Amino acid sequence: MSKVITPQQEDYSKWYNDIVINADLADHSAVRGCMVIKPHGYAIWEKMQQALDKMFKDTGHVNAYFPLFIPKSLFEAEEKNAEGFAKECAIVTHYRLKSDPNNKGKLIVDPDAKLEEELIVRPTSEAIIWNTYKSWIQSYRDLPILVNQWANVVRWEMRTRLFLRTAEFLWQEGHTAHATKEEAIEETTKMLDVYANFVENWMAVPVIKGVKTANERFAGADDTYCIEALMQDGKALQAGTSHFLGQNFAKAFDVKFAAKDGKLDHVWATSWGVSTRLMGALIMSHSDDKGLVIPPKLAPTQVVIVPIYKGDEGLKKMSEVAQSIKVKLEAKNISVKYDDRDTQRPGWKFADYELKGIPVRIALGERDLANGTIEVARRDTLSKETIRIEEVDVYIEKLLIEIQNNLFQKALERRKNMTHEANSYEEFKQILDEKSGFVLAHWDGSPETEEKIKNETKATIRCIPLNNPQEDGICIYSGKASKQRVLFARAY
Amino acid sequence: MSKVITPQQEDYSKWYNDIVINADLADHSAVRGCMVIKPHGYAIWEKMQQALDKMFKDTGHVNAYFPLFIPKSLFEAEEKNAEGFAKECAIVTHYRLKSDPNNKGKLIVDPDAKLEEELIVRPTSEAIIWNTYKSWIQSYRDLPILVNQWANVVRWEMRTRLFLRTAEFLWQEGHTAHATKEEAIEETTKMLDVYANFVENWMAVPVIKGVKTANERFAGADDTYCIEALMQDGKALQAGTSHFLGQNFAKAFDVKFAAKDGKLDHVWATSWGVSTRLMGALIMSHSDDKGLVIPPKLAPTQVVIVPIYKGDEGLKKMSEVAQSIKVKLEAKNISVKYDDRDTQRPGWKFADYELKGIPVRIALGERDLANGTIEVARRDTLSKETIRIEEVDVYIEKLLIEIQNNLFQKALERRKNMTHEANSYEEFKQILDEKSGFVLAHWDGSPETEEKIKNETKATIRCIPLNNPQEDGICIYSGKASKQRVLFARAY
Repeated sequence: MSKVITPQQEDYSKWYNDIVINADLADHSAVRGCMVIKPHGYAIWEKMQQALDKMFKDTGHVNAYFPLFIPKSLFEAEEKNAEGFAKECAIVTHYRLKSDPNNKGKLIVDPDAKLEEELIVRPTSEAIIWNTYKSWIQSYRDLPILVNQWANVVRWEMRTRLFLRTAEFLWQEGHTAHATKEEAIEETTKMLDVYANFVENWMAVPVIKGVKTANERFAGADDTYCIEALMQDGKALQAGTSHFLGQNFAKAFDVKFAAKDGKLDHVWATSWGVSTRLMGALIMSHSDDKGLVIPPKLAPTQVVIVPIYKGDEGLKKMSEVAQSIKVKLEAKNISVKYDDRDTQRPGWKFADYELKGIPVRIALGERDLANGTIEVARRDTLSKETIRIEEVDVYIEKLLIEIQNNLFQKALERRKNMTHEANSYEEFKQILDEKSGFVLAHWDGSPETEEKIKNETKATIRCIPLNNPQEDGICIYSGKASKQRVLFARAY
Repeated sequence: MSKVITPQQEDYSKWYNDIVINADLADHSAVRGCMVIKPHGYAIWEKMQQALDKMFKDTGHVNAYFPLFIPKSLFEAEEKNAEGFAKECAIVTHYRLKSDPNNKGKLIVDPDAKLEEELIVRPTSEAIIWNTYKSWIQSYRDLPILVNQWANVVRWEMRTRLFLRTAEFLWQEGHTAHATKEEAIEETTKMLDVYANFVENWMAVPVIKGVKTANERFAGADDTYCIEALMQDGKALQAGTSHFLGQNFAKAFDVKFAAKDGKLDHVWATSWGVSTRLMGALIMSHSDDKGLVIPPKLAPTQVVIVPIYKGDEGLKKMSEVAQSIKVKLEAKNISVKYDDRDTQRPGWKFADYELKGIPVRIALGERDLANGTIEVARRDTLSKETIRIEEVDVYIEKLLIEIQNNLFQKALERRKNMTHEANSYEEFKQILDEKSGFVLAHWDGSPETEEKIKNETKATIRCIPLNNPQEDGICIYSGKASKQRVLFARAY
């Protein structure tokens, strides 16, 4: 194969890019910072969407759709939120092109079609949604509102990386409205749990649940909960966030409800989201120098069958066996592709499916066939086993579960090995530079200390873990008293 | 209920708007011409998406995602396409806001963040996609490409109507690439058939398949195929289009492939799309003065069970029966909602589910319960029947099929009654004004005649039906010879 992947050890960042491009997940586009999600990448994203959407619906949420554009006056209504996103907004100012009088066949922006009020391409939808909720909510009977939206958003980024940081990305954003603070906080943590469940049990990526410090909070939130994952190179990746928005947006958009006793109060809010960034987390958790590794639960194709044959007669016999295997596996809800293309040789196909991360490959050879056996190869361990054809469905069903579990356990083990405690600033810096990974260290709780550590080491506080053990200690930076360690790391 | 719907006979257009707003399908937003799709409306759209997406995949297509923005220089590459959409484009010119120095807490567009090249918010994606295909296609081995995208698009409209014509709308757009003209034309008509199948058999809306005249063709297409439906008020609605794009985009973006014999040729293209406009077609085909009517195959909830009870003890007994009915129906893949809310009375619920278009309502009364019967009401005919509880699953399963068929037959019958032949221009105008509907009339084939008829009567040629009967006649406008009648109507 001509597609060469830079080894992880040589250059992790280049390796990542090679995987994304060569496994046909995504590509750069003609638009600065925007990506094209290719069919193989999009099919994985669709599997993620389906699983998440079912979880949202099972927890009582419904989908809706709100406008792409936000009038500037609405956008700026919640000041902290507006300030947080102002520097990365794409702005629509005109609504018409016209022929360029000086350049036949070319177009120019029509200066007569300037909008009276500029429109912001949504970087997040709190503003437009809370302006809408104002007309949906009058009484406690209208609450809670449990709405989710699948959409594209735009945040203008100067330095972009496929899936991890792109100007446009796809995501879901939940926006809920509640009568009480307690209920809103409960919703915030419930959705954090949904995310943790999805990322751990579908993506096979272990996460640490926690709360962001004030510095790292979502602009406009009272509290930001997050799940943090650790990538193979020891850098952290924020995999999802769930925000308790307090009454901030209700106040900015004047959304009040009449309680049972008739008293008017502002509505309590949450928002929560995950994005195509999860594709990056998936890649950097399991893949290797041969290519992508997809956990079975998210693999659009779980099993591929490749025949190794001579001549049309040989192929015909094999196709019969392959089709019967396919039928048996599909009866167990396993997705199977039988690749009988004659334009590519078996070795090429093997390498290509390894590159694309298909969890299980079945090879059908002539001798196997005579013996009533097939060869089964696992993508995660690259090991092979010969099994009898009649046990294929039971065997593969178990194997897919085993692969899913193995990927999670390996990632968990890696995180364990890459999580360290630091008891001094020197030790802290040494761990970051020599071992990388998560560092648990005492911090005095001040934004100033956090900021200084960040500027000096590029490490940020990823979160204060939930149910964090309390212990007396001193801040590694300031030497002031501290009651708990927090989770530091360099991050994507 | 306080929600009043203007009767169809009084003002059809107002009736339509009342249905959309009061059945909670969509609402106007703070952004000029953009709508909010509310949960009930979005749930129907999701059912449409699921059915269509399966049909696309069953015909070999895969999904992908391309950028929202198109650089102006790419947008203008295919001149006819660019000219066709230039007047309705939202244009991004800046990528940053900054604090307004004269107005604390307010933001202004940062003049230093002007883009070197303006970005067009996609009104359709041929340009960005064909610019991408250039790097995907080298040889015949890379063909065909059968890609679909689910996305939002923006076409700036001066006069908007919920679902029917909005500045932003949701749609899918298929973009395929082929080695031969014949294969591309086959794809174009195949997807037209997929659309016709969906609209007739899921939406229960009969359509006429045909080809657009040159005047009505998609900008950049060699041929536009369409399906045309007739609404209750006698106006036509274009429900879907499938374009044979020839080599126009391949030439504009220089996309060539090496054939088996090594010869280079430009690639052949198609594109095809349906949008949230289909929601409008659904509403204006079946609904009545009591509200929306949803065909069972697209109803997010197909059956609602409403208990009529006195006291908690009464409710408890009924809930047991209701739950057992629910389980039996769900075992047959029927979606059921049991509404035991005590905040609303049964009569209110009946009216609300009628308004929202739920196909079947089951009422559970105390006397029914004693008799072992339930009352089943159909939304389409508003008729009721009492049936024995033990036959509920078989009965409802059949009933849903019957309702689906009945809606289609009623719409078909209406279309038949509203399709007329006109043999003179006087008769043509009289039919349009007095009977409305489809008018089959001879036309001389010239764009000029078509244009004049349009300007004088507001009727357009909806299509030249496929397999159109050939007959000698004379053009109703010019008196010139004609070989066939074409389909005229006033249209949405």
